Amino acid sequence: MSHELSIVEVAPRDGLQNEKTLLTTAAKVSLIEQLVEAGVRRIEAASFVHPKLVPAMADSEAVMEAVPRRGDVSYIGLVLNSRGGARAQAAGVDEVNVVASASEGFAQRNQNSSVEAIISEAEQVIADVKQAGMPVSITITTVFGCPFDGEVDPDVTVGLAARAARAGVDEIALGDTIGVAVPTQVSSLFNAIRAEVGDGVRLRGHFHNTRNTGYANAYAALEAGVRVLDASAGGIGGCPFAPAATGNIATEDLLYLVHRMGYRTGVDLEKITPISAFLAGELHHDTPALLGKAGGFPTPDGAR
Amino acid sequence: MSHELSIVEVAPRDGLQNEKTLLTTAAKVSLIEQLVEAGVRRIEAASFVHPKLVPAMADSEAVMEAVPRRGDVSYIGLVLNSRGGARAQAAGVDEVNVVASASEGFAQRNQNSSVEAIISEAEQVIADVKQAGMPVSITITTVFGCPFDGEVDPDVTVGLAARAARAGVDEIALGDTIGVAVPTQVSSLFNAIRAEVGDGVRLRGHFHNTRNTGYANAYAALEAGVRVLDASAGGIGGCPFAPAATGNIATEDLLYLVHRMGYRTGVDLEKITPISAFLAGELHHDTPALLGKAGGFPTPDGAR
Repeated sequence: MSHELSIVEVAPRDGLQNEKTLLTTAAKVSLIEQLVEAGVRRIEAASFVHPKLVPAMADSEAVMEAVPRRGDVSYIGLVLNSRGGARAQAAGVDEVNVVASASEGFAQRNQNSSVEAIISEAEQVIADVKQAGMPVSITITTVFGCPFDGEVDPDVTVGLAARAARAGVDEIALGDTIGVAVPTQVSSLFNAIRAEVGDGVRLRGHFHNTRNTGYANAYAALEAGVRVLDASAGGIGGCPFAPAATGNIATEDLLYLVHRMGYRTGVDLEKITPISAFLAGELHHDTPALLGKAGGFPTPDGAR
Repeated sequence: MSHELSIVEVAPRDGLQNEKTLLTTAAKVSLIEQLVEAGVRRIEAASFVHPKLVPAMADSEAVMEAVPRRGDVSYIGLVLNSRGGARAQAAGVDEVNVVASASEGFAQRNQNSSVEAIISEAEQVIADVKQAGMPVSITITTVFGCPFDGEVDPDVTVGLAARAARAGVDEIALGDTIGVAVPTQVSSLFNAIRAEVGDGVRLRGHFHNTRNTGYANAYAALEAGVRVLDASAGGIGGCPFAPAATGNIATEDLLYLVHRMGYRTGVDLEKITPISAFLAGELHHDTPALLGKAGGFPTPDGAR
């Protein structure tokens, strides 16, 4: 099993989306520049949804216009439907990520739609983006639990993954949207999806540390053969359904864990902790990441 | 593999030991009473070391005199040498835990002794306590990394474990004293020790969440067959070598994780979060545990 692990940095989108403080376009671009400089090669840079729904992402076109362009860096635009897919492509993203919910309650409250209608739309987005010759991924949300429906049937997720795979998706991400998953759920669902879609589709994990299970879930995903993980610098990205809770797993803490286990990510941990500090300053609050507080090991900067 | 997991609650000793605020004896006894009421059946209640070294534990005899006595609750007294072992027995503990370091740097700075001298002393403590007909465990500290020596040779730990086993110890705990371990280290070292000491000795994990790897390490220990884990209510127990860092893995967050994976602990999660709040009040600071902030799942109190 490969020891190369790809980190998808989601601070610019999932990280900032629910923050009270809106960052300027210039600050977002600076964040993205710093991430690229740290060695991150896939970045969830923007989302193309209605600005009324997500005001923090209203400047997505402007962000995409200003980010540094390099052949080895891929910017991901998140979309909910074909219109968003077209906007993302027009804005010059390198990849499109389409989102589909595995629970009816979340589909209704988050997208005012049904699981079936959303996956049908996603299939169309996947076909459109592939036709344009661009990589496309799907994130299936609330697969480990829904704030409205409670437990979510894993078979629904496996069914949605199968449909996305048939539509030609390159990568399937499982999202623990509200941070309720535990490692055995993670192993079991990734294994079921691998068995269903085969080896031609990449699998990816998206974990929140809301209840302190996020890093254990990341480890379980690695053990299940997943080689792409989302994380946000500083661990920003609190959930609107648990206002006091922490956010995505933090890039620097995940890097500490995976580097010390022998994985190569190409990302420089030393350069991520200052980005956390930058975000704490911009957002006017401390971030949940621990590495900047505790220091690395065996050397303080975490170098090996 | 059994799905019974035993929680050793360490808030009264490891949790409180490094806190700036010293709790009164009455507050410590109240803490212990609340833990027993919540269903905890093994509690690290006190330590019997020189009061000059650990002022927070100077009232250990008084604590042991006042705790509720029940046949199904076992109070553990931590000791560093035979004198401490005798004090612990005289104070009426139900079990003795002796500590030995796997790194010379920590042995020198923490006990002003050597690894060899400490394990020799521990062998004597184990023999004495067994002769008195009482259970005895050993915690081998800094096995995953030392703040002074850096990396620690796993073979040293395996050797110390073998000596403790030959001396008749009932249980061997591996301590990630400064919170630097990652899951692959945990699996590998527990497997090596199991291979060395056989099935007659219980294994136990002691993890700190200093760098957000604590719960992943707990999961790795479970996967390696460990069925006893230390945790502290609220996750108190910061490390003197990383003053800004968080403490032991939190009992409530660990319970969320293991209960949702199907383990039975006999501890009532609903009754632990109020104990966290009690500790936050006594210590005048927030605790690192997340469950009280995020709420349980699928029900807010984490009941299943």
